[in-house]
Amino acid sequence: MEIILTKEMGFCNGVKMALKTLDKLIENKSEKIYSIGEIIHNPDVIKEYERKGVKVLKNIEELNEGIGVVRAHGLPLSIIEDARKKGKNIIDATCPFVRNISKIIEKEIKENSKIFLIGEKDHPEVVASTYDYKKYVEVIDYENFSSNNFKPKCKKCAVLAQTTLEESKFIKITACFIEKCSEIHIYNTICPAAKNRQKYAEEVAKKVDLMIILGGKKSSNTKRLFEVCKKFTKAIHIERINEINPDLLKGVKKAGITAGTSTPEWIIEEAINFLEKY
Amino acid sequence: MEIILTKEMGFCNGVKMALKTLDKLIENKSEKIYSIGEIIHNPDVIKEYERKGVKVLKNIEELNEGIGVVRAHGLPLSIIEDARKKGKNIIDATCPFVRNISKIIEKEIKENSKIFLIGEKDHPEVVASTYDYKKYVEVIDYENFSSNNFKPKCKKCAVLAQTTLEESKFIKITACFIEKCSEIHIYNTICPAAKNRQKYAEEVAKKVDLMIILGGKKSSNTKRLFEVCKKFTKAIHIERINEINPDLLKGVKKAGITAGTSTPEWIIEEAINFLEKY
Repeated sequence: MEIILTKEMGFCNGVKMALKTLDKLIENKSEKIYSIGEIIHNPDVIKEYERKGVKVLKNIEELNEGIGVVRAHGLPLSIIEDARKKGKNIIDATCPFVRNISKIIEKEIKENSKIFLIGEKDHPEVVASTYDYKKYVEVIDYENFSSNNFKPKCKKCAVLAQTTLEESKFIKITACFIEKCSEIHIYNTICPAAKNRQKYAEEVAKKVDLMIILGGKKSSNTKRLFEVCKKFTKAIHIERINEINPDLLKGVKKAGITAGTSTPEWIIEEAINFLEKY
Repeated sequence: MEIILTKEMGFCNGVKMALKTLDKLIENKSEKIYSIGEIIHNPDVIKEYERKGVKVLKNIEELNEGIGVVRAHGLPLSIIEDARKKGKNIIDATCPFVRNISKIIEKEIKENSKIFLIGEKDHPEVVASTYDYKKYVEVIDYENFSSNNFKPKCKKCAVLAQTTLEESKFIKITACFIEKCSEIHIYNTICPAAKNRQKYAEEVAKKVDLMIILGGKKSSNTKRLFEVCKKFTKAIHIERINEINPDLLKGVKKAGITAGTSTPEWIIEEAINFLEKY
């Protein structure tokens, strides 16, 4: 079987930064370390950190001792500040691209724009970037968006995207704003890493009989990679290669591999080694 | 033959205002009246005003006496001001939608945006709204636009449209900006009258065997109406109904009529009366 890897895959800079923060704290071993939420959406990585003594807390309220690290998906700044005021030791490892969305929202509030974010309402990243501004921001669920029912009722608006959104969907929805509003500030806040991974995954998916997408089941950007790939070929989203049904590999001459931004290198290598035997 | 008229057609407010200005001056008869450029793009209207003593000048330099009325398509404000400084008596009948484009450009210059206007480079309207800012504005010819060769090389940009541009084309081109820039201020400067006329023309075009588009050959918005209609049915762009080849009407059960924003009521009525005999 020929294996084709996508040009870019695996950890993005935001993930690398969050894990580096955790690694440094583990190295210093000064205090007990907690991750507030799963540091990234990958169960194997979480397990590895648990082995090293990092405990995952459901939320910031559970932190009563030691150091709490805010995961890459982030938390609203107001919640972090409240906790700090209560004397909690918090290190913020929120991805800079998520924080950037809040900065843009603040700027647009000052400009009196009506603000829309296209994404998943309850995704932790969306909550982290919009919670403090919920009076001003309407989150539009891209799955259930219908241009016919859409009446923004504003002349001036700002439109942003969840960092992992598929760009073609963002463009399709922004078109409705262009039709209905006279001034629209469009911010392409899709993370370049997520965007490139989607682009390269599409390129490979077009050439292979099967596309294997490695990444956490809860990982939003991995789900997007799967959605992109399945448009072009047979595709499967798994966390580890041993989940694959061998029947699926029958007759496959070319297999493509890509991985979400929370998937570590070793999970990718494990998959390559496994497939090379076929 | 059944005749279907579009819900909106003929004179827009900008044209009405320009002609009203001219009519008032004619009524007062105090001085000789000149139109700087054809007041609107309709030869029959021009002829009628010539009969009433209004002479068309090629440009503002030719004005040496009397009152010069700037046509609806407009002239750059700097050129009007220069002429006024030289003692010329100028009345500006530029369409407010054209002037609005200049205001947006001024605002975006202050915000350090790279500015793009999608339209026809040499169209008088485009010249009127961009000439004073040519250092800052790039006019993108929508006919020859290719997304592959397009590299805006800017993070922040503003995108505007010639008032008569087809909205679907505007949306298609703005999509390339969304893909390539991180912040885009999109101004849908397409004139509501032009937009509605296109929308209603499309609706009628879908129902008829022949669509007749009445308007000046030089009229940009009439050309757009023709482009929209011919996608859906047989369509013809004429200035007057007597230009029609009777062969074209053979077998036509339903004919649609629309007219550009410079087409006077009587030309539309003339067409209806003519077609009612078939």
